[in-house]
Amino acid sequence: MGRWQSDSRGRLQEAALALYAARGFDQTTAAEIAARAGVTERTFFRHFADKREVLFGGSDLLQEQIVTGVVQAPGEWGAFDAVAAGLDAAAAMLGELRRDLSRRRQAVIAANPELREREMAKLADYATAVAVALHQRGVGEPQASLAALAGMTVLRVALDLWASGSDERDLPTVMRESLAELRAVTAGD
Amino acid sequence: MGRWQSDSRGRLQEAALALYAARGFDQTTAAEIAARAGVTERTFFRHFADKREVLFGGSDLLQEQIVTGVVQAPGEWGAFDAVAAGLDAAAAMLGELRRDLSRRRQAVIAANPELREREMAKLADYATAVAVALHQRGVGEPQASLAALAGMTVLRVALDLWASGSDERDLPTVMRESLAELRAVTAGD
Repeated sequence: MGRWQSDSRGRLQEAALALYAARGFDQTTAAEIAARAGVTERTFFRHFADKREVLFGGSDLLQEQIVTGVVQAPGEWGAFDAVAAGLDAAAAMLGELRRDLSRRRQAVIAANPELREREMAKLADYATAVAVALHQRGVGEPQASLAALAGMTVLRVALDLWASGSDERDLPTVMRESLAELRAVTAGD
Repeated sequence: MGRWQSDSRGRLQEAALALYAARGFDQTTAAEIAARAGVTERTFFRHFADKREVLFGGSDLLQEQIVTGVVQAPGEWGAFDAVAAGLDAAAAMLGELRRDLSRRRQAVIAANPELREREMAKLADYATAVAVALHQRGVGEPQASLAALAGMTVLRVALDLWASGSDERDLPTVMRESLAELRAVTAGD
């Protein structure tokens, strides 16, 4: 058991993923998650606004991380290289998560259409924020939106690959290789 | 008034878009749409399963069109060229729609988070179907998913550009140019 297990937030995430996987997201209540984690329902709501946030909490921080990576990329870099810097920043943050939890999270999302929609919406939000950051770097449209959306495609594919466990490399490596694959595939290689 | 105005389905779409734009999607009922179109509520439900389908009806057909384009592309074509053939097929179908209706449709979707989520989910569904078609062409992972998702990025950006009316070219042209822009942007040009 690492540091992660010792706090209520981590225990709540663990309990939620176990219950979502066992009986489905819709059939699980916040009270049940709290009970399984050995904390009060009040503690649950101190950590998460609702039971969906157990899965998507931290997305604001992730978006900020990605945008900061784009903004701080050297000014002479092109649009997609700046997006790549944002993806590196995302991978550094997400790579700290436990892979087994990420894997179970992806499985729960994949099993529920409403959660899949939510995940896609989050990616679309990140893309919008990245496009705005690219505009500030002087990138026009449609280049900014295309670079931003293509970058979020890489994020999604790399996270799936990494969480699926079929790939033993760390997330930053998987992210960079997925990006290289996208470049190759769009170039027609 | 063209042929489009003469049928109930078209009148219902026109009425729905006017009401969604004026008072919001959530505040509009199927009965109100039917009344405005001068048909019965029963006629509404003969054409559309619910009021969301006025916006997303035809998406199964569109997906079929895209996949057929991918499947029928010459066998020696690479993954992204096959996706491009699917996008050409989509543009041929969608380019037949009235641009003013498409523009109002995009505006209604943009104004409603739930509809934006639904739109992203549809694109994700198309991407999944395209990836399956690419697997059948012998394309592996993650190349198939990357090519399919990048293609749907082009579809979304091209539709927005075309519907926004800032671009007077027809949809097949906008689609091809957006695809060329994506290739250029990921290549770092």
